Amino acid sequence: MTIVNGYEQSDREEKLNIINLTELEAKAKAIIPQGGFGYIRGGSEDEWTLRENSNAFEHAQIVPRSLTDMENPSTETNVFGLNLKTPIMMAPTAAQGLAHAQGEKDTAKGVAAVGGLMAQSTYSSTSIADTAAAGNGAPQFFQLYMSKDWDFNEHLLDEAKKAGVKGIILTVDATIDGYREEDMRNNFQFPIPMANLSEYSDGDGKGKGIAEIYASAAQKISGKDVERIASYTDLPVIVKGIESPDDAMLAIGSGAQGIYVSNHGGRQLNGGPASFDVLPAVAKAVNHRVPIIFDSGVRRGSHVFKALASGADLVAMGRPVIYGLALGGALGVQSVFETLNDELKIDMQLAGTQTIEDVKRAQLLHIHY
Amino acid sequence: MTIVNGYEQSDREEKLNIINLTELEAKAKAIIPQGGFGYIRGGSEDEWTLRENSNAFEHAQIVPRSLTDMENPSTETNVFGLNLKTPIMMAPTAAQGLAHAQGEKDTAKGVAAVGGLMAQSTYSSTSIADTAAAGNGAPQFFQLYMSKDWDFNEHLLDEAKKAGVKGIILTVDATIDGYREEDMRNNFQFPIPMANLSEYSDGDGKGKGIAEIYASAAQKISGKDVERIASYTDLPVIVKGIESPDDAMLAIGSGAQGIYVSNHGGRQLNGGPASFDVLPAVAKAVNHRVPIIFDSGVRRGSHVFKALASGADLVAMGRPVIYGLALGGALGVQSVFETLNDELKIDMQLAGTQTIEDVKRAQLLHIHY
Amino acid sequence: MTIVNGYEQSDREEKLNIINLTELEAKAKAIIPQGGFGYIRGGSEDEWTLRENSNAFEHAQIVPRSLTDMENPSTETNVFGLNLKTPIMMAPTAAQGLAHAQGEKDTAKGVAAVGGLMAQSTYSSTSIADTAAAGNGAPQFFQLYMSKDWDFNEHLLDEAKKAGVKGIILTVDATIDGYREEDMRNNFQFPIPMANLSEYSDGDGKGKGIAEIYASAAQKISGKDVERIASYTDLPVIVKGIESPDDAMLAIGSGAQGIYVSNHGGRQLNGGPASFDVLPAVAKAVNHRVPIIFDSGVRRGSHVFKALASGADLVAMGRPVIYGLALGGALGVQSVFETLNDELKIDMQLAGTQTIEDVKRAQLLHIHY
Amino acid sequence: MTIVNGYEQSDREEKLNIINLTELEAKAKAIIPQGGFGYIRGGSEDEWTLRENSNAFEHAQIVPRSLTDMENPSTETNVFGLNLKTPIMMAPTAAQGLAHAQGEKDTAKGVAAVGGLMAQSTYSSTSIADTAAAGNGAPQFFQLYMSKDWDFNEHLLDEAKKAGVKGIILTVDATIDGYREEDMRNNFQFPIPMANLSEYSDGDGKGKGIAEIYASAAQKISGKDVERIASYTDLPVIVKGIESPDDAMLAIGSGAQGIYVSNHGGRQLNGGPASFDVLPAVAKAVNHRVPIIFDSGVRRGSHVFKALASGADLVAMGRPVIYGLALGGALGVQSVFETLNDELKIDMQLAGTQTIEDVKRAQLLHIHY
Repeated sequence: MTIVNGYEQSDREEKLNIINLTELEAKAKAIIPQGGFGYIRGGSEDEWTLRENSNAFEHAQIVPRSLTDMENPSTETNVFGLNLKTPIMMAPTAAQGLAHAQGEKDTAKGVAAVGGLMAQSTYSSTSIADTAAAGNGAPQFFQLYMSKDWDFNEHLLDEAKKAGVKGIILTVDATIDGYREEDMRNNFQFPIPMANLSEYSDGDGKGKGIAEIYASAAQKISGKDVERIASYTDLPVIVKGIESPDDAMLAIGSGAQGIYVSNHGGRQLNGGPASFDVLPAVAKAVNHRVPIIFDSGVRRGSHVFKALASGADLVAMGRPVIYGLALGGALGVQSVFETLNDELKIDMQLAGTQTIEDVKRAQLLHIHY
Repeated sequence: MTIVNGYEQSDREEKLNIINLTELEAKAKAIIPQGGFGYIRGGSEDEWTLRENSNAFEHAQIVPRSLTDMENPSTETNVFGLNLKTPIMMAPTAAQGLAHAQGEKDTAKGVAAVGGLMAQSTYSSTSIADTAAAGNGAPQFFQLYMSKDWDFNEHLLDEAKKAGVKGIILTVDATIDGYREEDMRNNFQFPIPMANLSEYSDGDGKGKGIAEIYASAAQKISGKDVERIASYTDLPVIVKGIESPDDAMLAIGSGAQGIYVSNHGGRQLNGGPASFDVLPAVAKAVNHRVPIIFDSGVRRGSHVFKALASGADLVAMGRPVIYGLALGGALGVQSVFETLNDELKIDMQLAGTQTIEDVKRAQLLHIHY
Repeated sequence: MTIVNGYEQSDREEKLNIINLTELEAKAKAIIPQGGFGYIRGGSEDEWTLRENSNAFEHAQIVPRSLTDMENPSTETNVFGLNLKTPIMMAPTAAQGLAHAQGEKDTAKGVAAVGGLMAQSTYSSTSIADTAAAGNGAPQFFQLYMSKDWDFNEHLLDEAKKAGVKGIILTVDATIDGYREEDMRNNFQFPIPMANLSEYSDGDGKGKGIAEIYASAAQKISGKDVERIASYTDLPVIVKGIESPDDAMLAIGSGAQGIYVSNHGGRQLNGGPASFDVLPAVAKAVNHRVPIIFDSGVRRGSHVFKALASGADLVAMGRPVIYGLALGGALGVQSVFETLNDELKIDMQLAGTQTIEDVKRAQLLHIHY
Repeated sequence: MTIVNGYEQSDREEKLNIINLTELEAKAKAIIPQGGFGYIRGGSEDEWTLRENSNAFEHAQIVPRSLTDMENPSTETNVFGLNLKTPIMMAPTAAQGLAHAQGEKDTAKGVAAVGGLMAQSTYSSTSIADTAAAGNGAPQFFQLYMSKDWDFNEHLLDEAKKAGVKGIILTVDATIDGYREEDMRNNFQFPIPMANLSEYSDGDGKGKGIAEIYASAAQKISGKDVERIASYTDLPVIVKGIESPDDAMLAIGSGAQGIYVSNHGGRQLNGGPASFDVLPAVAKAVNHRVPIIFDSGVRRGSHVFKALASGADLVAMGRPVIYGLALGGALGVQSVFETLNDELKIDMQLAGTQTIEDVKRAQLLHIHY
């Protein structure tokens, strides 16, 4: 165990014997300090949207197919010009030092080991360069929380470019922090510096609450910001936090080269729909003009399948990976992705889908009672 | 603590550290005597409608909006010619002396502190004049339970006018008391005089059950009564307890200048719909001819947002405020409104709505499974 | 307490202080021997239909009405040429000696006291004549379980006529006993003779299980049986156990002068719909040609209201009355009906309905989520 | 008790006093070793589909019918040219030695005693010939898990033919084993040889996990395989594991003489629909061209009724029979089928259906709330 500013960080490094990802939460809770765990797990208000995010996958059913003359389905896919071994990617997730002493470096290693796509957060515990280096050449995206300070934004984009990241995820649904009750109950403040902030200034986030961190972020975001960022960088810009056809159209019209459907894992607007429930309408509006990344509530291979069959090109996951990171470091992260990908492969076989493209064309049922 | 007729009234005066309003019920239960608490909390029959009132907000979902170029949403609004800092108002609620020794006076102070609208009840523990004075010039409405004795009705309207109230809320859904089982179990009788009754006669309500109190109220109410009251006073008359387009049309046709959609917080007709579920149909019938006030089941900022987006101009709340009153007096009341308004502001930002007018124009989803 | 064949019968005679009817079950369970209680309470198979019978009332909502210029609603009604003080009647219920030493005689007294309609069962513990006499001239119906022995059927119809009953309820949904697990678990056999059986033969039902009792009943029933009974008696014949428009049409075509919509309180076919859910379709088919009686699951005044507003002319209740009988004899029965009728009156006032005819014309909402 | 390779097999032989089939699970759990019980009971992933299989029967309701002039309904039926006393058949179920020392032999005896149809599994604990002989001339089907080794497939078909089986059930939905968590938790390996495997080679399945067993099965299955098997044998080939109209059409087009609608009891693709929910669409596509067998989730007589009324010609059951086998051997199996058939008969009488053909023509309601 590593102790930083009185906060006990896990430093485990081991493969995990995972039955399913939902079991990780209780195990992680036992080793992550209460404030850190609350920040990672929690959602906003009474967490209706957080719960609905996972429950909503029951709103669609996969049709079992049997006489399809196939075997050994492949989860390989090519999105944003990247060859990936799995359509399951790492969602950009802040402050992973809360879970493990190696933070995002170990996550990057674990993701690289499964041939997936890593996304770094602006609010990472480790720096863009360090996280990128840990990934051993595997593809990474950088997620930008747009600052009011454009110099800082440009600095981050420069750093990301320099580190060789392949795309920019611009988060636009966090213009204010959601009403997160668990953080309030824990009076949570980040005990660990955020490397990208401390590099640029002496305000490194340590000792601050989430509200203070967000205070330096831009609250007022529009298509013009998308345009400005897209014109500053030659990397593809994916706009994250889209839950409506209108915002998707605005983003694409402003130069977005990808749409990231997400309600921030139920951490922002509570009382909004499950992210899975809005995916089909957004996908219909996007109409294959740009790739779609989806997250919020994904815990099972069948969730990944259903999201792909509802319009997603990549499916991201946050909390379970962080739990795996805490429990096993890079190897734990790898175990989490392997488990979910194994489940996905079984679902693909049993649904008669050879490739990820087949999954995207699969028809779901929507039997409601 | 103050003891009146053997009843223990809270006299706390302090700001509350509130995480969410639903937590207040258990805290208030610990300090309000059983009979009084049962009267405040209870609904009718098996409380299906009471529970459905809050659950029904899940029948609609707020669409998160991100690229809307806005910040610092404002909850200010102008309704009935009144400039209000928040669209969340105090619902007229009887007998607040059950919760606190200062009763309605403290509620009025707390509401004034947040720039909201106070509504007094005919069955207040403190008099119209005293409650009005406590409000420091902030706007108040007076709610009338129509008596069989028109002299008394006119006396109350005169008192209200004299005290400077800005509108009359005429409650029409309490022509008989609902079948409130908790009051029956507690054999509840009001331990504290009702000031407006004792001023006028020696029948002050003390030592009576709710059925006896209602017995002096008019059971037979029609549009003619609305007309008579509207012609007696030059204040706007808002008819409260409307749950159908038919009654809304009747009320407006009889001179109502506002419609108050409410099922009395589930305290009258059980087996009726959640108030939120009938709001859109009533609003469609009213068609912006007069403002609409809504209550019943509101506990979260997202509830306020959804009610406004479904046709309400003001959203009222009763029980949580009374709990706040018991726990902290005027400061407790202020804390309750501030908490809910803070939640509303976050929801407004995350839904891309700058003003209350924007919220009213927001489109909700209705995803049902 | 009275002990008959080792079975302990209640002999209480007292008014009950009832908050609501659902609370009676637990109280009755405490004083009725296990086998008897299981027979009274139980349903068939896993009791899905039994539970759904009560839950289904939530499928419809009463519209609160306020400006309707009415007071003092009346529950009086005239059906089958009978002036009744309440539309709530006693459902024909077997073997009431299981609950009380006075059996059906006390039930008849209690029903008479509230001005309601009593229905005797073929399988009563007390004889037709004795039960009729106990009713003090108040109207009664006699319910016939058709025997394979037509002499016995005619004997019963003769007895009923002689005793002055006003109508014959022909039960047609019990051609075999439902799969009642609680009776199987208790290995239940009737400990108390059935008076109408013992009068006619030495086979009085005592010491038999429900299956044996039903074995002497006709299993094969058709419209021809309805015709035969209708032509034998000049009393109106109401066919009980109708859950479909088809059976309703068959019954009316065969001379039925009333339709009794019931699924036998969930005691016969499990996996069938809630009785309330099929009432509108049956009522539409019947189209006011004959009156409709409804039962199955009624526990609240709002249930009675909703059934009347969905096509019923009378609403019957069984189990809660039997519990009241056990707990208080004739006075207990009276208390049960008074409680439900009081609830109904409150619902009528709050829904703006002056008369039972108004209730029948009231429109329900069907908000489903 | 018999101990084989350290595994304790039941050797009980007795009639069971069954109230309902759902109660058997807990009783069986008490006597079957944990690993074996987990294999029998378990489903895949979080078992949503397993649970939904049984819950889905509530999506349809049987219409009670009363005036239908019938008695003594008969469950006899003729399907595939076989005269059966009951439409309830034994589902092909692997490794019944886990439940009882006599394994499939006792199951065959019990099924024969009720005049039903037995289906053997490729992965039986007892051999084709032994199981067939135990059936005393009663009809049996043989279920084929298609091996990659066609010599083995033909050997099995030859053995089945020689043993006098009347049909071949070709399972096509197990091209890979479902993600069965309980087996993973128990690290389950088959402790008992699979007779058909050990006869043919020295790989008898003992000491292997389900994944290893399936590894020798063909993963890639198409209509061509159906054709090849249908042309090799002159027995009717029924394709099992069909959940979509598309696969049903493919199977029939390839020579299938029966369609077996099943999701493998929720053991394969989780997140797929309840089998009962897809039955009507498959039946509509099949349009009576070939008989339909249905399984997954059947526990009550009303389930059998609803499946028949939704398009099935035979209804199969697995787990409850295995529990009965463990608890009572052949007599236990007989008790399970008798209980369910008794329930079915009661449902038939109360729904006014004289014959299984009448049941198939019965109209169900689909009331959803």
